[in-house]
Amino acid sequence: MAPVPPVSSAHLEEMDKDGDLLRYAMDSYIADKKSGTGNANIIFTLKEKPGALAETLRIFQDHSVNLVHIESRPSKRYAGSYEILVECAEDAEQKQLEAVIELFKKKGENVLVHDRDANSKIEDSVPWFPTRISDIDQFANRVLSYGSELDSDHPGFTDQVYRERRKEFADIAFNYKHGEKIPRVEYTPAEVATWRVIYEQLVHLYPTHACKEFNYIFPLLQQNCGYNADNIPQLQDVSDFLKDCTGFTLRPVAGLLSSRDFLAGLAFRVFHSTQYIRHGSVPDYTPEPDVCHELLGHVPLFADPDFAQFSQEFGLASLGASDEMILKLATLYWFTVEFGLCMQDGNRKAFGAGLLSSFGELQYCLSDKPEVLPFDPTVTSVQEYPITEFQPTYFLADSFASAKAKLASWAASIPRPFQVRYNSYTQRVEILDKASSVQRLARDIRSDLSTLEVAIGKLAVNEK
Amino acid sequence: MAPVPPVSSAHLEEMDKDGDLLRYAMDSYIADKKSGTGNANIIFTLKEKPGALAETLRIFQDHSVNLVHIESRPSKRYAGSYEILVECAEDAEQKQLEAVIELFKKKGENVLVHDRDANSKIEDSVPWFPTRISDIDQFANRVLSYGSELDSDHPGFTDQVYRERRKEFADIAFNYKHGEKIPRVEYTPAEVATWRVIYEQLVHLYPTHACKEFNYIFPLLQQNCGYNADNIPQLQDVSDFLKDCTGFTLRPVAGLLSSRDFLAGLAFRVFHSTQYIRHGSVPDYTPEPDVCHELLGHVPLFADPDFAQFSQEFGLASLGASDEMILKLATLYWFTVEFGLCMQDGNRKAFGAGLLSSFGELQYCLSDKPEVLPFDPTVTSVQEYPITEFQPTYFLADSFASAKAKLASWAASIPRPFQVRYNSYTQRVEILDKASSVQRLARDIRSDLSTLEVAIGKLAVNEK
Amino acid sequence: MAPVPPVSSAHLEEMDKDGDLLRYAMDSYIADKKSGTGNANIIFTLKEKPGALAETLRIFQDHSVNLVHIESRPSKRYAGSYEILVECAEDAEQKQLEAVIELFKKKGENVLVHDRDANSKIEDSVPWFPTRISDIDQFANRVLSYGSELDSDHPGFTDQVYRERRKEFADIAFNYKHGEKIPRVEYTPAEVATWRVIYEQLVHLYPTHACKEFNYIFPLLQQNCGYNADNIPQLQDVSDFLKDCTGFTLRPVAGLLSSRDFLAGLAFRVFHSTQYIRHGSVPDYTPEPDVCHELLGHVPLFADPDFAQFSQEFGLASLGASDEMILKLATLYWFTVEFGLCMQDGNRKAFGAGLLSSFGELQYCLSDKPEVLPFDPTVTSVQEYPITEFQPTYFLADSFASAKAKLASWAASIPRPFQVRYNSYTQRVEILDKASSVQRLARDIRSDLSTLEVAIGKLAVNEK
Amino acid sequence: MAPVPPVSSAHLEEMDKDGDLLRYAMDSYIADKKSGTGNANIIFTLKEKPGALAETLRIFQDHSVNLVHIESRPSKRYAGSYEILVECAEDAEQKQLEAVIELFKKKGENVLVHDRDANSKIEDSVPWFPTRISDIDQFANRVLSYGSELDSDHPGFTDQVYRERRKEFADIAFNYKHGEKIPRVEYTPAEVATWRVIYEQLVHLYPTHACKEFNYIFPLLQQNCGYNADNIPQLQDVSDFLKDCTGFTLRPVAGLLSSRDFLAGLAFRVFHSTQYIRHGSVPDYTPEPDVCHELLGHVPLFADPDFAQFSQEFGLASLGASDEMILKLATLYWFTVEFGLCMQDGNRKAFGAGLLSSFGELQYCLSDKPEVLPFDPTVTSVQEYPITEFQPTYFLADSFASAKAKLASWAASIPRPFQVRYNSYTQRVEILDKASSVQRLARDIRSDLSTLEVAIGKLAVNEK
Repeated sequence: MAPVPPVSSAHLEEMDKDGDLLRYAMDSYIADKKSGTGNANIIFTLKEKPGALAETLRIFQDHSVNLVHIESRPSKRYAGSYEILVECAEDAEQKQLEAVIELFKKKGENVLVHDRDANSKIEDSVPWFPTRISDIDQFANRVLSYGSELDSDHPGFTDQVYRERRKEFADIAFNYKHGEKIPRVEYTPAEVATWRVIYEQLVHLYPTHACKEFNYIFPLLQQNCGYNADNIPQLQDVSDFLKDCTGFTLRPVAGLLSSRDFLAGLAFRVFHSTQYIRHGSVPDYTPEPDVCHELLGHVPLFADPDFAQFSQEFGLASLGASDEMILKLATLYWFTVEFGLCMQDGNRKAFGAGLLSSFGELQYCLSDKPEVLPFDPTVTSVQEYPITEFQPTYFLADSFASAKAKLASWAASIPRPFQVRYNSYTQRVEILDKASSVQRLARDIRSDLSTLEVAIGKLAVNEK
Repeated sequence: MAPVPPVSSAHLEEMDKDGDLLRYAMDSYIADKKSGTGNANIIFTLKEKPGALAETLRIFQDHSVNLVHIESRPSKRYAGSYEILVECAEDAEQKQLEAVIELFKKKGENVLVHDRDANSKIEDSVPWFPTRISDIDQFANRVLSYGSELDSDHPGFTDQVYRERRKEFADIAFNYKHGEKIPRVEYTPAEVATWRVIYEQLVHLYPTHACKEFNYIFPLLQQNCGYNADNIPQLQDVSDFLKDCTGFTLRPVAGLLSSRDFLAGLAFRVFHSTQYIRHGSVPDYTPEPDVCHELLGHVPLFADPDFAQFSQEFGLASLGASDEMILKLATLYWFTVEFGLCMQDGNRKAFGAGLLSSFGELQYCLSDKPEVLPFDPTVTSVQEYPITEFQPTYFLADSFASAKAKLASWAASIPRPFQVRYNSYTQRVEILDKASSVQRLARDIRSDLSTLEVAIGKLAVNEK
Repeated sequence: MAPVPPVSSAHLEEMDKDGDLLRYAMDSYIADKKSGTGNANIIFTLKEKPGALAETLRIFQDHSVNLVHIESRPSKRYAGSYEILVECAEDAEQKQLEAVIELFKKKGENVLVHDRDANSKIEDSVPWFPTRISDIDQFANRVLSYGSELDSDHPGFTDQVYRERRKEFADIAFNYKHGEKIPRVEYTPAEVATWRVIYEQLVHLYPTHACKEFNYIFPLLQQNCGYNADNIPQLQDVSDFLKDCTGFTLRPVAGLLSSRDFLAGLAFRVFHSTQYIRHGSVPDYTPEPDVCHELLGHVPLFADPDFAQFSQEFGLASLGASDEMILKLATLYWFTVEFGLCMQDGNRKAFGAGLLSSFGELQYCLSDKPEVLPFDPTVTSVQEYPITEFQPTYFLADSFASAKAKLASWAASIPRPFQVRYNSYTQRVEILDKASSVQRLARDIRSDLSTLEVAIGKLAVNEK
Repeated sequence: MAPVPPVSSAHLEEMDKDGDLLRYAMDSYIADKKSGTGNANIIFTLKEKPGALAETLRIFQDHSVNLVHIESRPSKRYAGSYEILVECAEDAEQKQLEAVIELFKKKGENVLVHDRDANSKIEDSVPWFPTRISDIDQFANRVLSYGSELDSDHPGFTDQVYRERRKEFADIAFNYKHGEKIPRVEYTPAEVATWRVIYEQLVHLYPTHACKEFNYIFPLLQQNCGYNADNIPQLQDVSDFLKDCTGFTLRPVAGLLSSRDFLAGLAFRVFHSTQYIRHGSVPDYTPEPDVCHELLGHVPLFADPDFAQFSQEFGLASLGASDEMILKLATLYWFTVEFGLCMQDGNRKAFGAGLLSSFGELQYCLSDKPEVLPFDPTVTSVQEYPITEFQPTYFLADSFASAKAKLASWAASIPRPFQVRYNSYTQRVEILDKASSVQRLARDIRSDLSTLEVAIGKLAVNEK
């Protein structure tokens, strides 16, 4: 076995002596060799006592699978157990890996196999999903297109300078790792001019067309993040502001992610944001999200606590979901976060980013032309929609809190063998499939409820 | 007024035109000019609409108080209001500042004045406390002693090399800012030798003397953070591990903080840790906390979720508390986090860091010599104790969860005009003194409860 | 003043001596002299100490209003205050009563005036509503028609025997008081024959057309309450069964109540049930609810915990609501409790009582003829409907729990200056308009949550 | 088989045809033939579908056990299952019954056997406990002594008239059934004179010696229940008052119950109260509880919501507990409900009924003579105490809510394979040992939390 520094051989030997019955459950996945580091990660849980680790590691050795990294942590799912992550060396053979996993499955009880490849044929497999915020690094580069690869009908297709520039932005995103600052970009005068056109058009519509939460936040972005007609705000400044408001952060992305990957980011309150701007020749049009769409359409509402929860709910519901469920979630996302309307003080207002970043559709959507239906996840999730023209149908939410509750309630009705919970202290997704992990959540809620009770008591004192 | 870049003059003028009635509540404090940046920060809340900001800022101008920084955020306490932080220029006169604050107080309703100087004579003032994790930067250097300033009875008093070394460590801490990596230190062979003596003595006692949570975590520190006889672990590695387990982080500190400041850190799950090691001449003794005490005594249990909550509870109870309350909290901290015992499977075990880092007292505390009383915050908080000898009295907790509940319940009975809540997404302390802020918490709890309900439902399905 | 036995004159004198400042809030109403006992009840709250009672009672004396009954209780809304109910003698003049109430309002702070007459012109008045289960006695006889008063198109209009029989049933209901047993009725062979026709038709449809909760309960009614083709079950037996299942009880009613009164009963889990049967000449038709509709349509689902909560939610939302809101609630009730459909295992099923008691419409409603929309309170509450023919439109609920949550959430958005809570220990509706009363609820929830946490802990133990 | 009216033979045959696999869990007990009706009740749960009932009933037939009553209900523990109670005929042979139960146990999965005889040797058996409020009828007459059976040192031992009178009271209690009115008693002038002596002494001490909750309620008892020097209040009036305040009710009892039986009543908020008065020769002394002790000592605090919860907690913790646990609970009850002190506004006050009904000990307990320790269930539950003299040691609670929380938390640490919950709608104890039953509780809590959230929202609106 390759040297695995954190586990001293003395320690391994000592564990060996115990000769304990090896009992474990396993969460494993075989990494797609073509993406990321190319290394396979296997996560498994050791019950009872650490003595079992050495015996388990020998399984890898017996199959000539070298390990390059081992991490162990308290298990969040099985009280008193340990969670072990091993990263296999790049040269590990797929066949050997599979043999190891099969062995684990045979010995293990209650095995949950993650598989990175959602099309995998392995029975009962749950598609792999990130459980730590840093896991996003493993898929953030699986973009559908990259940098200068523009479609032939893209306004910038023949503009070599624009394509070069797109490549620069793509490289920033590609090299970005969780925890780093997003590089600041000096936008060119031409780019700022494009921004100005869009900004000035929209700012006049917001007071009458955007929802009140948007209009409450927008001045703060002007005051704190450099939102104005002459400046394209920097992603890092905006991300810092959002972090301070709701814990949302931005992460630069090189192009379109799959729905599964994009939604997974939201579970961690991470929003994948483009940094480039649309081609200046047609400022009113962009065939893909750009920085105008992100900063004007999406960013403001991520500073609203209810909207932040609503958005995160998409992410949490998507983790380990079936492809069919992902499709429904993406549709629901489309009709809310991108194109949602809501009712406020008796008037319809826009809250979807696709509306708030489009001068034309923002006016159209509040006119009497489109059909407007009440937001109901059962109905909305199967509604078809065009992507290249104004929407014929919009859905109307009562409030973000209500939309969030409806979404959560609907998502709960979809089969998934476990529930997940986001722990914002550890920035990890916890899997609740055991009474012991559920108990932890109950305890936390009771603790919060004590806080609440005391707080109401203070109100009662002040009321006298 | 000095230029305040984030607020454009055009925007100010526009706000001016509104001529709206200025209504605000204010949270302010005058910074102690002798510490920190020397700049006074004033935080106030603007109700209704941003139009009021310009008029408010003119008050500063009228009193010749220049501002160097302005930040605005959604208010967490007053739904729909804005919270404005202004940092006054270093040359602002104390008298002018006080005049501004008086003016605010006269106009304001529901003013909560923070005062950094806890001995302030201002009536009804609540001592200043940090509300963002980065606020810790403002007091982390207010240490009671610094670096090489050793007392005459300190084992290293006459050792010039040791004093130089202490100065190095103090400088690291002094220059540290929130969000940075803690510099790695190469410990000298002599330092490692001191560590080895202590480590080897203690490791043999732990299985029989330490509580089970400690023994569950300790192997993980050996496997992941380099805990072994020949290596003093690096604070950053340990901090990363803790962050991943419970969200706790370490922050280097140059010397002893006041109880108020030290406890405040815990509210954010920040533990101020020394980095230097005791003098090698007397490895069994140190008159002050050192890295052995921190890493062996404190660190392991911060990886336990219940203990982490328990520790944070001290911090939350301390914010804005009276001096008398701080004293009681420090006493409770002493008898639990430092010298606590607990009952497990019918046997007493140690969980206090002062015990777990002392070969002698760890044995003594479980003998029949000391008095052992049940942990009861009302009783424990007023118990006197010696600091230079083994404790004559220990308190016995049932469990961390139970101790946490008792502490919270006791703290709730202490007068404080508000309740606080830690938001781990934004790493901010939220003040709950308004029904609107309390409602937000209720909503979050309900959301968590939905998650819980679904999780129990999954258990129910699996049970069939 | 008329003798008021529970308050001894010595006690009054003693209170008098205190000469305390009279401070109180008042909840009062002037009874409609034409209904009920004809006596006016006034409820007010005395703050601080009982010494104030005598002074308050003197106000009535000064206005020559004699009291026939006084009751005092701990106030649920104002911690530490007392709630006093006085029943004025029948001969009290309306003008004098109004003068007393005006006086109360002038002296009182935070006055909530209940007015029995919902059309009252008194500004800001909240319509009177029952707060104790026994208060239902005060309105249960305000029926729109009574006994033998049949419309000219009623099938029994010319049948003198039937009209006599209806009068008998009406008298039972009219004389009924809360807490009594419902008189058993010997149904005639002709009545049983009518029942048999309906029962036999429907029993064959239920397995395929009714929701699963209905089919789960129905055998229990057969086994325990005498449901069979040859027997019309007794209301008291059915009420006892329901009480044991969900706490619902039946109360006999002489005819149609107003929506406001009928819904109010549901707040206490009291269902007003007719006891007479339709005219035997047209067994498939009845222009008003009869015992077949109640026992076959309504009763089974009141034994389901989720449906019971859902039904109660209508009641709680109706208390003190505006006439407009009552209308919307009645419409929602119509489209759910009376004519609701739900989706189960991919198929539509009926759960509305109007469907489950109608051989024809039960088949029609699941056919492809009617329009079926998703249940959404905002939409459903304003949907028009015919009452004499099959419904053209039905609404489809996901589940009772979900429908209940939607209803509660929608109701919460309707302006009402307070929230209510039903206390099933005391069978009282508690008004939550003070932080102190809200705190009580928070405490109860925390207590329940502790129970939950322990219960999950037991599951965790069993899981190992 | 004896005729069992609610189950028609046709129905049985129909069920027979299904020939379904019989799957069930069973809760059973064999009634002590010497007490109660003499009939054995067996409760079991039928999973899946009612078809299994007939096959199950045949088991009884095969063993010649005749049934006199069958009841079926929705199971609260197993979603979708039915709970069946059968009452066996009086002539059923014990041996046959045991054979039936053995058979059930062999076939059943997850069998929970209740055994009425707590000393039973059956392994793993959980002592029988009541689950419906009417079950109390089955043990309320198992008194340790009855009516005129007085000890030789009883002050009334030689008073034949007093013994006759005691017999009268005992008969009232013996004949009482749940749901009936408690017969009113005309107390003799001599009895009233005894009451007067005690009443007048105590009433003067209460303002200074009793806790504030007691003094808040006491005037209400004077105003509403006839508490005065010249009148011994009627149990029914007091019970009605308590029911209206907290849902507590009184139930007459002929003598001392076992701790297990007495505590079980509290789970349902039922307090077993004596109705007779002590012997008039020594008004300051009674060797057993009497109506003075109940009405003056116990009753007032049962009207306090927190105290009511605290008292009920004893009952809930006692259900199915081991004899050792019952002993500890009885000790805790002694040191709180009977002899508890609490701290209020810096002063000690009495809240125990044994103190509040004793002129001498009420003064003694607040003097500096006795030892006073903080209330800590772990410590208090094992404290010894004398029963015939003033207590040498008292325990001091912080508040009823805090004492309740401590008690619940301590009780949770005691092994019991299930958690229980009281449903005040159905007046049943629900056993939470399945995720499906736990889920129901979680749903109810969420519903309450929605109510809370809306209520806080109303406060927020009013605050503006």
